[in-house]
Amino acid sequence: MSLMDRITACAPGNGDDTVDFIAAGQRVGGVGRGVIKHLKPFSGVLQFSDKAISLSSELASYQHRTDAMAEIIRVLRAQGLIPGWRDETYPVGVSFSAPALFEIERAAVPLFGFKGYGVHLNGYVRDGDQLKLWVGKRSKSKPTGPGKLDQIVAGGQPVGLGLKENLIKECHEEANIPADLVRLARPAGAVSYTTFRPEGLRDDVLFIYDLELPASFQPQNTDGEVETFYLWSLDKIRDILEQTDEFKYNSALVVIDFMVRHGFIDAEDPAYAEIVAGLHR
Amino acid sequence: MSLMDRITACAPGNGDDTVDFIAAGQRVGGVGRGVIKHLKPFSGVLQFSDKAISLSSELASYQHRTDAMAEIIRVLRAQGLIPGWRDETYPVGVSFSAPALFEIERAAVPLFGFKGYGVHLNGYVRDGDQLKLWVGKRSKSKPTGPGKLDQIVAGGQPVGLGLKENLIKECHEEANIPADLVRLARPAGAVSYTTFRPEGLRDDVLFIYDLELPASFQPQNTDGEVETFYLWSLDKIRDILEQTDEFKYNSALVVIDFMVRHGFIDAEDPAYAEIVAGLHR
Repeated sequence: MSLMDRITACAPGNGDDTVDFIAAGQRVGGVGRGVIKHLKPFSGVLQFSDKAISLSSELASYQHRTDAMAEIIRVLRAQGLIPGWRDETYPVGVSFSAPALFEIERAAVPLFGFKGYGVHLNGYVRDGDQLKLWVGKRSKSKPTGPGKLDQIVAGGQPVGLGLKENLIKECHEEANIPADLVRLARPAGAVSYTTFRPEGLRDDVLFIYDLELPASFQPQNTDGEVETFYLWSLDKIRDILEQTDEFKYNSALVVIDFMVRHGFIDAEDPAYAEIVAGLHR
Repeated sequence: MSLMDRITACAPGNGDDTVDFIAAGQRVGGVGRGVIKHLKPFSGVLQFSDKAISLSSELASYQHRTDAMAEIIRVLRAQGLIPGWRDETYPVGVSFSAPALFEIERAAVPLFGFKGYGVHLNGYVRDGDQLKLWVGKRSKSKPTGPGKLDQIVAGGQPVGLGLKENLIKECHEEANIPADLVRLARPAGAVSYTTFRPEGLRDDVLFIYDLELPASFQPQNTDGEVETFYLWSLDKIRDILEQTDEFKYNSALVVIDFMVRHGFIDAEDPAYAEIVAGLHR
């Protein structure tokens, strides 16, 4: 058991098992071959070839594409193919900075392998020359990773909010961290992965912020999404990462990245180069 | 002009332009097609196919493979194909942690596209709530990147030294940083790139250490490899990175990684996700 197990859990699967999803002439996703048959009834707006499914080029505007996708997933949802509906829309495009081509309900994103984005906060406390990290245990009612360990605050990046703005909102909802404190959080990089999960292809970038919290601060969940919080030493967290899959698969990457950046993992560890590379795929 | 120019300068080239170099049945490098004709005379120890050049499987030991490669590069050197001879041997294997299959003179590594490893130190000084970074200007006599800007200390990772041990040696030679101070340096990750340079295919991992230096510390070069040192604000260094290619191509990645990790680059920068991904290829 080692940190590499957590890296491997986010490793790319076999790309042959997907066909590209094309919108406005550009690849925006990857659809598992098992999903194709459920999309065949929508041949009015989807075109099928051996290697790709394309959204009709007649859908020439953001709104037209959004409406067409909404109708498709309305039907798929009724068939039970889109569990964990959030009522939260994600932008879909070629990259984070490229203009979105349409928007879609968050829960449908993995089914089409669209790119997803999130903000994750490492809330840490200094204890002498050691760091302790706040860990949240996700509510058992969460649609993804129920009961798993997570950052103190983590959330998807929806349409219409800036990253820091979203972080402030999530920090309020998940841990009741005051906005003035959150504004001190520093951007610290990103992890990325492309991996198959039960819900589909996850092709995500998680933007990472670090926030040093006062020893007196006690997080409090306000939205029911976090069951409890723990303030743990990095040694204890490393043991959990190495020996269990209690951390949500992608949140584990964020913790490992924190450990790498803060010098907690010895570069002489034989797996070091592989670990660092595995945080960015 | 932007930081993305520095990322793009280390981007992968066209892989079709290389053939794999195989040793002990495993890919250990990539040879530019223009180099193949110079290797043809060595058909006693090299086997050629359309997609690969293989070191004869009759060379069954580390020493036999090392001797065969040494003879090949002795001849190529006499033909002027291996400039910048270092008299420093690099291990060659599948990865950093895999057992080396043979060793070879450092200057010959890019010609065969073998994986290279280095240690780079960010030496920084706190100035209020700002950070300043020591920058070295490489001697004009260096075989690679003469006159370019670089970390305060950076060196290749040769056979027979641990990373920290090598860092201590390089810190003495390049900047006269006392070993007791270097031991306080913290591992902070790695950057990696696979890119074509005039000398061949560079497929490198640079292990990164951060070291906070006292304001009173003044680096002094002892081996003639650094012309001068500057202590610059991150603002000034960012301007140089954005507007010039004065930094050595790979050292620029190490500086950008430092800026990302220390919160100096806003995650709302539209290129942020691309920049972070571009540090790990």
